[in-house]
Order: sequence, then C-alpha cells, then structure tokens
Amino acid sequence: MATPAEIAAMRRGLELATRGPASRNPQVGAVILSASGDVIAEGWHRGAGTPHAEVDALSHLPADAARGATAVVTLEPCNHTGRTGPCAEALVTAGVARVVYAIDDPGDREAGGARRLRSAGIDVEGGVLADEGHALLDPWLTVRRLGRPHVTVKWAQSLDGRAAAADGSSQWITGAQARHDVHRRRSEADAIVVGTGTLIADDPALTARNGDTLFARQPVPVVIGTRPLSRDAKIWQHPQEPLLFATYDLAAVLDELADRGLHRVFIEGGPTLASAFLAQGLVDRLLAYIAPTLIGGPRHAITDIGVASIGAQMRLTIDQLLPLGGDVLVVATPESAVH
Amino acid sequence: MATPAEIAAMRRGLELATRGPASRNPQVGAVILSASGDVIAEGWHRGAGTPHAEVDALSHLPADAARGATAVVTLEPCNHTGRTGPCAEALVTAGVARVVYAIDDPGDREAGGARRLRSAGIDVEGGVLADEGHALLDPWLTVRRLGRPHVTVKWAQSLDGRAAAADGSSQWITGAQARHDVHRRRSEADAIVVGTGTLIADDPALTARNGDTLFARQPVPVVIGTRPLSRDAKIWQHPQEPLLFATYDLAAVLDELADRGLHRVFIEGGPTLASAFLAQGLVDRLLAYIAPTLIGGPRHAITDIGVASIGAQMRLTIDQLLPLGGDVLVVATPESAVH
Ligand SMILES: NC(=O)c1ccc[n+]([C@@H]2O[C@H](COP(=O)([O-])OP(=O)(O)OC[C@H]3O[C@@H](n4cnc5c(N)ncnc54)[C@H](OP(=O)(O)O)[C@@H]3O)[C@@H](O)[C@H]2O)c1
Ligand SMILES: NC(=O)c1ccc[n+]([C@@H]2O[C@H](COP(=O)([O-])OP(=O)(O)OC[C@H]3O[C@@H](n4cnc5c(N)ncnc54)[C@H](OP(=O)(O)O)[C@@H]3O)[C@@H](O)[C@H]2O)c1
Repeated sequence: MATPAEIAAMRRGLELATRGPASRNPQVGAVILSASGDVIAEGWHRGAGTPHAEVDALSHLPADAARGATAVVTLEPCNHTGRTGPCAEALVTAGVARVVYAIDDPGDREAGGARRLRSAGIDVEGGVLADEGHALLDPWLTVRRLGRPHVTVKWAQSLDGRAAAADGSSQWITGAQARHDVHRRRSEADAIVVGTGTLIADDPALTARNGDTLFARQPVPVVIGTRPLSRDAKIWQHPQEPLLFATYDLAAVLDELADRGLHRVFIEGGPTLASAFLAQGLVDRLLAYIAPTLIGGPRHAITDIGVASIGAQMRLTIDQLLPLGGDVLVVATPESAVH
Repeated sequence: MATPAEIAAMRRGLELATRGPASRNPQVGAVILSASGDVIAEGWHRGAGTPHAEVDALSHLPADAARGATAVVTLEPCNHTGRTGPCAEALVTAGVARVVYAIDDPGDREAGGARRLRSAGIDVEGGVLADEGHALLDPWLTVRRLGRPHVTVKWAQSLDGRAAAADGSSQWITGAQARHDVHRRRSEADAIVVGTGTLIADDPALTARNGDTLFARQPVPVVIGTRPLSRDAKIWQHPQEPLLFATYDLAAVLDELADRGLHRVFIEGGPTLASAFLAQGLVDRLLAYIAPTLIGGPRHAITDIGVASIGAQMRLTIDQLLPLGGDVLVVATPESAVH
C-alpha cells in the first residue's frame, strides 16, 4: 500500500513528467521523499541523452541525503546501460529504502529494474496511480511496441466503396453524426495527415471542431506529397504549425513523427495516400464511415493496395459496427497488424 | 364466421387455383356449396382471356342450380368488365345467397366486387384463410402494384466495394454462411438472372443448393446479353429450362418474365448487369454481402450507375444488417423504390 504522501508525490511526478518533451523517449517524473514523508528533491526526463528522471532528482541532493529515503517514479526504473547507465543501480548506490512506481517498464520484466532493486533489499511497490500513468505513457508504449506511431486510417464511403460522385462532388455522403465522430477522434490524435491531393482539392482546415468551436486539443496537421501548397490554404491558419513532407517514403515520415512525439497518427486520406499506407502494411486501425447510398463511377475511397490475387486480400477483424445516424462506422484491424 | 364446410371448400379452392398457370393473371380457384354444404361445382382460372374461377365453376351447373348456394372463391370477385365481364354480376345473376373469399381484390375497394354483391343483398365474408391466400397471390399482387416483377439485386463485395482481385480471382470473398444464405434465397425466387459476362467467366450452375443437394424449388435460370453461350455450359443441366435474352432492354425482359409468371426475380450480377438494373431504377431490394476484407484495384462490385453529381446519389433505406459468420448482409431498399 502506498501512503498518502507517496500518492501525492506520484501525482506531482506525473505533472513533472509532462515538462519533458514528447518524443521517442518516455516522459517520466520523479520525487524523492524523506523518511518522514517530506519532498526533498524532484526531477524529470528532458529527452534522449539526458539523465532519467530519478537520476535527475538524485542529482539535486548532497551525497548520502537519499539514504533511507523513498523514490517515487512514474515509470519502473530501468535496468539497462544506455547512454545514461541503469537507474536501478543509481538508486541502490544512493541507498534509498523504498521505490514506488506507476507503470511497469515494458521490457523483459525478469530483467527489470524492480527485480534488481528487490535483490538489493529495497522495498518496491509498482502500480501506484497506474491509470494516470497509462494515460500519459500509452502512446509512447505503442511506439515502443510497433517501432513507429500508431496509425489509424479513416475514410468515408458509399456502400459500394465510392468517395465522391463522378464530377468529384462529395458533400455530403455521410451525415452530421458521422462527421462529429470524426472531429472527436481527430482531437484525440497527435497528428492528422492528408496528401497534397486532398489539400489542393478540398482546402481543409484540418482542425478538430465541436460544432463551430475548436476542441482544446488540436492535432498537428501534416501534408505528404511533392506539389507546392497555396499560400492561401486554410491549413496555414491551424493553431499547430503544419508539417510538410515532400516524399513518398511513408515509413520515413512516420519515423520523423515518432521522433517529434506524435505517437497517434490519423490518416484522413485521400484515396491515394490511404491506399499507399494500406499497401505498405503501415496501418493499425481502420475507420470506415459507410453511408447508406450507392454512387458507382470512378471515384473510389480505396484505390490500389497491391492485391494481385484473392489469396493476398487484406483480411480484417471487425472490432465494432457502430450506427451513427443513418451511417455505420466500421472499426477494424488488419489481421496482419502487430498487436 | 365461416363454417367448417366453407373453410374446407376454401382449402380446395386454393388447390384448384394452382392448376391455373402462373402468369400476369392471378391464380384463382372457386367452389360452389349447396345450401346444405355439399360441393356442387368447382372451377379455376386458366389464364388471360379465359373465364374467371367463379364463372368457370358456375358454368358446370344447370341453370338455377346455384340459387341459394354459397360461392367460395380465393380472391374477391371482380367488378369490372374486362375480356370476361364482371364476376360479381355473374354471381348475382346466378342467385347465390352467400359469397366467401380469402383476399381482397387490390383495386379500388369502394368499387369492388364485395360491395356490388352486398348491394344485391348477398351475404359476403372476406379474409377466410387469408394467410394461405396471400402465400399464393403475393407475388402476383406485387407485379400488379409495380407493373413488373419484384427485383432483388444481390452481390458480394469486400468492404471497399470490390468483387474480385485484380487477376479476376474471387473465391472466396464471403464465407460459407453467406453463400448458404444466397442459396436459400435463390430457392425462394422464381427466376435467377445473370449477364453473359458472369455465365462465360464463371460457368455457374444457377441452381439453389442446400449443401450438395438441390432445394425442391428451383428458380428458372435467365441469361441476358448478346454473346453466344457454350453448349457445354453447366446451365444446360439446370432442372428448369433456361431463358436467354439477347437484348439490353431490361424492362422488356422483366415484362416477359412477368408474363411467364416469374414474379420474384433475383439478379445475381455480374457488376455490369447489376449496375444496369440499378441505373434504370428497376430494383426493389438490394442484398449486399460484405466481407471483412480490403482488395482495392479494378474489379468493382458496382460499376457505373449514372450518378454524375452527389445530388443524384442513390440513397438507400437499410432494412437489416445481418451478421453471417464473419460477413455482414446489408438488406436495403432504394429510397426511390415504389412501395
Ligand atoms: N471520402 C473520404 O474520406 C475522402 C477523404 C479525403 C479526401 N477525399 C477526396 O479525395 C480527393 C483527392 O484524392 P487524392 O487521392 O488525389 O488525394 P491524396 O491521397 O490526398 O493525395 C494524393 C497525393 O499524395 C501524395 N503522396 C504522398 N505519399 C504518396 C505515396 N506514398 N504514393 C503516392 N502518392 C503519395 C502525392 O502527391 P504529389 O502528386 O503532390 O507528389 C499524390 O498525388 C479529393 O477530391 C477529396 O475530396 C475523400
Ligand atoms: N461479386 C459478385 O457478387 C459477383 C457476381 C457475379 C459475377 N461476378 C464476377 O463478375 C465478372 C463478370 O462481370 P461482368 O460485368 O462482365 O458480368 P455480367 O454483368 O454478368 O455480364 C455483362 C454482360 O451483360 C450483358 N448485358 C445485358 N444487359 C446489359 C445492359 N443493360 N447493359 C450492358 N450489358 C448488358 C452484356 O453482354 P454481351 O456483351 O454478351 O452483349 C454484358 O457484356 C466475373 O468475373 C464474375 O466472377 C461477381
């Protein structure tokens, strides 16, 4: 059981964590409590190559000041020698009596820091404010698991798979409830990605809106493609600075987004870009908003995804069929996706 | 309340009805009961231009033999002078005391036969064995309402609207449960229609099968298109004689099917033919079997249906979303369809 002082320290640690940059490294905070439960030091991780949070906190204390103290850390102290040396070792050396942390290091748990600490006779307790810890670190955990950001591809289509009528007109295929659902999900993403085709054809704002007002949280707008964008494009008014990638190397784009701490990526098309992500096996989740209508003709929501023969079709697991007004949202996972 | 003798006579009338041909005219049977409840005459309708069932029955009796009798007829006696003169009038003239029938004539009820009979002082009772009557006559009632057979278009597709992979391979997109559902529905149809494209590419048997055995009821196989069919095509083994139409005039084909009493028509594609029926507004019901898979590429389940601009899209009412194994059957009605 964590003490009230330890729980308060964990809350503080979670706050401190967010001072560090979102990046390919986790955001971690640490607080050192004296034996009597007073805060004697704080620290957080400032990004790759800099000290981990607990080491940062210890560095503010005179030698021996942490002896018998409790270290409260948002992530299980690491046990490997990277650019900074293992934190578990540093805590042992500092002589702390107890370590409290929120979430497990996702690496091999047998070789984990908690085990090392326990073997040195330190009292260890994990899982304190685990939910809050997960809310902070899940996107990073996903990047660590996948080796790239988590990618959702979203599109709207008629029952027969069309994204627009022959003349290009597409407002509206899906209804207001479906569009609201899209905006809510946008607001939960870190980046919203479109191809130059969509940018040039539709001039979208790429903001997450709740009716006429902006959601507090806005995804970073990202455009991929080689054509230049108009200086008048609405995207330049976006509250977040747009990122432009004049490349077709989608894995490289995802790499760069991960480095910038954009861990939940929402691909909003158009058809060419969505299909390219699918063809390259870079998609973790699909959101297909299906309207009860037939359109026919040449404007397909999905173009070519490299399926030459039926054996190569991209099988999906349907996770949800969600009625939204007259439309249906299909939430699905490619069966080939890493879990 | 109908008497037991009248109910038995109605059952007999429904049997007699089926001796007549299924065609654009209804199948109707009639039985004349003496005042004591004995069967004194039977009749049925033998098709356009021949006497209606009740007139046929009366014709077997000597003059005055039907005076005070009860006429039991499966369909409300008609009140209009067609090629045969109104039956209501014939029953009045014959002096029957009571008329019992199963289902109402779908024409204007105020001008109907029952009203004419009542105004002549005859005791009239409708709705006797109405369910059995409907089972027999509903397809005909539909043809009468629509002016053509009831048309269901069925297709199977991936979530993104493809019917096959780029090389044409399509076995299997949907699973065993979906395929079984198709066969059961085939067995309830009067005709199963494909284009020459499907016939030549797939050489389908066009039978309704329950596993390896044929359903007792088999639809008439129909092929539309100008290309000649191979003498070895499986369709020539079908228990029903195939009908071939070397025309693109789909309304004319439906007309001919209605004349032959094929009132429930099941269009099984391919994409060109299904799309042509849709484009011409000749579809009453859609069955889209959607498999949880993406295929992309050039083989669309629906090709062009003449929607130039989004305002012209074909809005659907979704009647059912039916999970079938991993697939989903969407049963829908075009909003423009006559009801
Ligand atoms: N129904 C929906 O959900 C939906 C969503 C969005 C858009 N749309 C519609 O889609 C239409 C635009 O279609 P689109 O397919 O042209 O749009 P797009 O996918 O947004 O843009 C296509 C462009 O993306 C660039 N690109 C980036 N990476 C690529 C790669 N790996 N492979 C190929 N191209 C890559 C290329 O740009 P460069 O040529 O500049 O190099 C390409 O021309 C618009 O009419 C829009 O309204 C529909
Ligand atoms: N996914 C599914 O549910 C499904 C179902 C059936 C078939 N398929 C696949 O579809 C492929 C065949 O496609 P398809 O489109 O060629 O087949 P189709 O629609 O069966 O046949 C097309 C032919 O129908 C004739 N036709 C009749 N009325 C027409 C009209 N009003 N307008 C135009 N043509 C008319 C023409 O024949 P003529 O050229 O001879 O005059 C035309 O070439 C096959 O590979 C098959 O496996 C898929």
